[in-house]
Amino acid sequence: MFKDASVAEIELALQDAWKAFHIYRKLSLKQRADFMRTVAKEIEAIGDELLQVAAEETHLPEARLRSERARTMFQLTSYGEACERGDWLEARIDTAIPDKTPPKPDLRKMLVPLGPVIVFGAANFPFAYSTAGGDTACAFAAGCPVIVKAHPAHARTSELVAQAIHKAVKAAGLPAGVFSHLHGVSFEVGKALVEHPYTKAVGFTGSFNGGKQLFDWANQRKQPIPVFAEMSSINPVFLLPGKMKQSASETAKLYAGSITLGVGQFCTNPGLIIGIDNDDLQTFNDALAGEIVKASPGMMLNTGIFKNYVERRANALSQEEVATVAVSAADPQLEEGAPTIASVTAPVFMQNPILHQEVFGPYSLIVKCRDIAEMQEVATHLEGQLTATLMATEEDILQHESLVEEVKNICGRFILNGVPTGVEVCLSMQHGGPFPATTDSRFTSVGADGIKRFARPVAFQNWSNELLPAELKNENPLQIWRVVNNERSRSGI
Amino acid sequence: MFKDASVAEIELALQDAWKAFHIYRKLSLKQRADFMRTVAKEIEAIGDELLQVAAEETHLPEARLRSERARTMFQLTSYGEACERGDWLEARIDTAIPDKTPPKPDLRKMLVPLGPVIVFGAANFPFAYSTAGGDTACAFAAGCPVIVKAHPAHARTSELVAQAIHKAVKAAGLPAGVFSHLHGVSFEVGKALVEHPYTKAVGFTGSFNGGKQLFDWANQRKQPIPVFAEMSSINPVFLLPGKMKQSASETAKLYAGSITLGVGQFCTNPGLIIGIDNDDLQTFNDALAGEIVKASPGMMLNTGIFKNYVERRANALSQEEVATVAVSAADPQLEEGAPTIASVTAPVFMQNPILHQEVFGPYSLIVKCRDIAEMQEVATHLEGQLTATLMATEEDILQHESLVEEVKNICGRFILNGVPTGVEVCLSMQHGGPFPATTDSRFTSVGADGIKRFARPVAFQNWSNELLPAELKNENPLQIWRVVNNERSRSGI
Repeated sequence: MFKDASVAEIELALQDAWKAFHIYRKLSLKQRADFMRTVAKEIEAIGDELLQVAAEETHLPEARLRSERARTMFQLTSYGEACERGDWLEARIDTAIPDKTPPKPDLRKMLVPLGPVIVFGAANFPFAYSTAGGDTACAFAAGCPVIVKAHPAHARTSELVAQAIHKAVKAAGLPAGVFSHLHGVSFEVGKALVEHPYTKAVGFTGSFNGGKQLFDWANQRKQPIPVFAEMSSINPVFLLPGKMKQSASETAKLYAGSITLGVGQFCTNPGLIIGIDNDDLQTFNDALAGEIVKASPGMMLNTGIFKNYVERRANALSQEEVATVAVSAADPQLEEGAPTIASVTAPVFMQNPILHQEVFGPYSLIVKCRDIAEMQEVATHLEGQLTATLMATEEDILQHESLVEEVKNICGRFILNGVPTGVEVCLSMQHGGPFPATTDSRFTSVGADGIKRFARPVAFQNWSNELLPAELKNENPLQIWRVVNNERSRSGI
Repeated sequence: MFKDASVAEIELALQDAWKAFHIYRKLSLKQRADFMRTVAKEIEAIGDELLQVAAEETHLPEARLRSERARTMFQLTSYGEACERGDWLEARIDTAIPDKTPPKPDLRKMLVPLGPVIVFGAANFPFAYSTAGGDTACAFAAGCPVIVKAHPAHARTSELVAQAIHKAVKAAGLPAGVFSHLHGVSFEVGKALVEHPYTKAVGFTGSFNGGKQLFDWANQRKQPIPVFAEMSSINPVFLLPGKMKQSASETAKLYAGSITLGVGQFCTNPGLIIGIDNDDLQTFNDALAGEIVKASPGMMLNTGIFKNYVERRANALSQEEVATVAVSAADPQLEEGAPTIASVTAPVFMQNPILHQEVFGPYSLIVKCRDIAEMQEVATHLEGQLTATLMATEEDILQHESLVEEVKNICGRFILNGVPTGVEVCLSMQHGGPFPATTDSRFTSVGADGIKRFARPVAFQNWSNELLPAELKNENPLQIWRVVNNERSRSGI
């Protein structure tokens, strides 16, 4: 439907972005926030057409799309507010001490934007992690121009959102190069974008293979650049014995909902449930099976994701000693994913890396452990994860401290008695985690701290007050929080 | 003198570090700071033997070594204080809103340590960027065990400092694996350390080839890990016309001192001076030449660095259209580096990448530009730098804004009317910069913000106050600054 961007179009987009960078980065924090608020308004102004096109392209229900659109607008406005608040700048001032030996110069530091950022949209979030999604919002807040490579599975949706951003760029009187939108089905478009010398960072949400490829290209450049790729997570859930004794059935019901939510197409879908093989786990197992049999298959996002689910599920179920616990009873229609639960013993799980791989869809694997020690062994065998969850009583936690520490050590978000699906947009959110959950566990792609992926510190040494940026001037005209001579303060100097 | 670490020794060090990690990371901030203060005291307790051995191994004068030792102790104690102050934890709290749809859970985030860190000592800073140097101090503050690969050029010094750390580890009752010290002349030792699955991060200060190799190994791992390598910078100095009219000779004298300081063996040595080809630049040129001719050659750190200086200097001077401006008049003795100034026109400089490479030693190249536009062109042709300096009047700055922005964009520290040598240890320092100055411009290796290289955020969702770490409890028992519901605060909730 849309033609892949040509080499000339890619070159032009980067040239324009580079020129625009020199203007956009000089905008005040308030101007950036105003621009981001306008983007949000322009997205809303598209109206129901946006929801209709997205529904056609992704098969997501209207209610979900409506709330995802609201979330996207909230990200733009709240990251804009965070941009204005200026905490992310990490402003630090150390005043001169001329009579020290040697004299200590005046030093003032703040974050500045990296440069043009390439954003790759996610298949499963056509709004919130795509064209004007979290990565784009963070890059705009940091002061970076953005080039979006539209996800081919919702290219028309992406095109509509891109038009809204173009309007906001125009309304703010900014150069067009602040935002470019390119299409590309072939991997050559992505490769050319990541390898261009004017590209200074990359944001990606998607599969392990896709993210890892971008990461490798970026590191093989003459001048390597940072890539934040959110890739692959099976979000283990540990069922502790005290909690299971109390509420095995309730936990099973809670998890049936989380596993099947949105046809399991969330990066935080609980794909692994680890319990101790006893009567309580059997109760959990039976209750979960009962719910899954009753659950309806749902149409998946697109043909590729559907095929991938069918293949990966079949592959997982065909592994030696893997038992199928439950499959939804209703016959799946064309491109519908059928909710499925399997189980396996811990030793088999630990020895078979295929069982550690994400099966993107409404699938979860129960791992049966002999005891707590074996449960901890499973934790140490797990790869990095976006989330890990403990279903546990307070006593469970206090009794099994080393298990708790081990599980904390592999994840970005550590949940107690809840489900991993549902990612709140707020400053305390960590949506990241050790590899392969992401390519850099030190950053997040949700919450305003995500801005810092696209900025770097610059220290100004010996600059006069008149010549310093507003953020670092003595009088603190922007009223931001700064650290002055090791003390946090909002006052002037 | 020291044998390279064997495969078995490397394995043992990582096994021990991994075990120690589980204990060390649970230390309170105060306990970590106390441990770091003990390391500083134990280094002091070695006494003059440390200075003597270091002088023998590095040929650095006693006064320099004495002040470098003081700096090393200050790094340990001040990063320890920063660790206790807890700003680096980036503690954020968003309290629950149960009646929101869907309910907003309680979320609290803070940084936690990555795991064992490998530190590669620097040739030119036997104390401050080696065994117990900045990287080690940052890793200890973050809660990470450290394995140091001693620099072979000052292995005895490194061994003495390592003994001091071992004593501090014992005095604190910590497992020995919190710190290991290995020798290695062959690159296999470094490779094995970087590739070990228990290694979670790397700190390095040294040559481009060394740092880039570690970066590549780290990214080619099955589970890539972050490497902060501080590598290569020629620290350009831009002489603006107004300033040159005022004080060409004074500037030349200032820079003669900076170029020859410590026989030019600083990563912030000004290796490139860019001016506009006019009478004022000639005055600068002549005054600098006069100083350099009078300057004494100095014994370099070691044979490798001396040979490297001789070769690289000869290579630079032999490039087409490069003129030798001045060489110190005194005959250099064995392994002494002779202060040297060369010059070239801007077009030749821009076309010859060899002239952009660091000549580690007392060498600087003057680049003569036709006008300000050409000076800006030179700035855009430069690679990433640790520092960039403007020698400029206020009017120069205001008149040439786009040049100023271009120069800021390539550096980590942006100096006005000063010299880049001399790196103050304080929170506002940025010792980093775009590639190839470092492998990640978003971090620093000097100042307590360097702690964040070795830590990652974890969000706790729905944990009760009793079970949360002290840093995130309602009552804020540690009295640290946190962001609570988007407001910065030191109060309890």
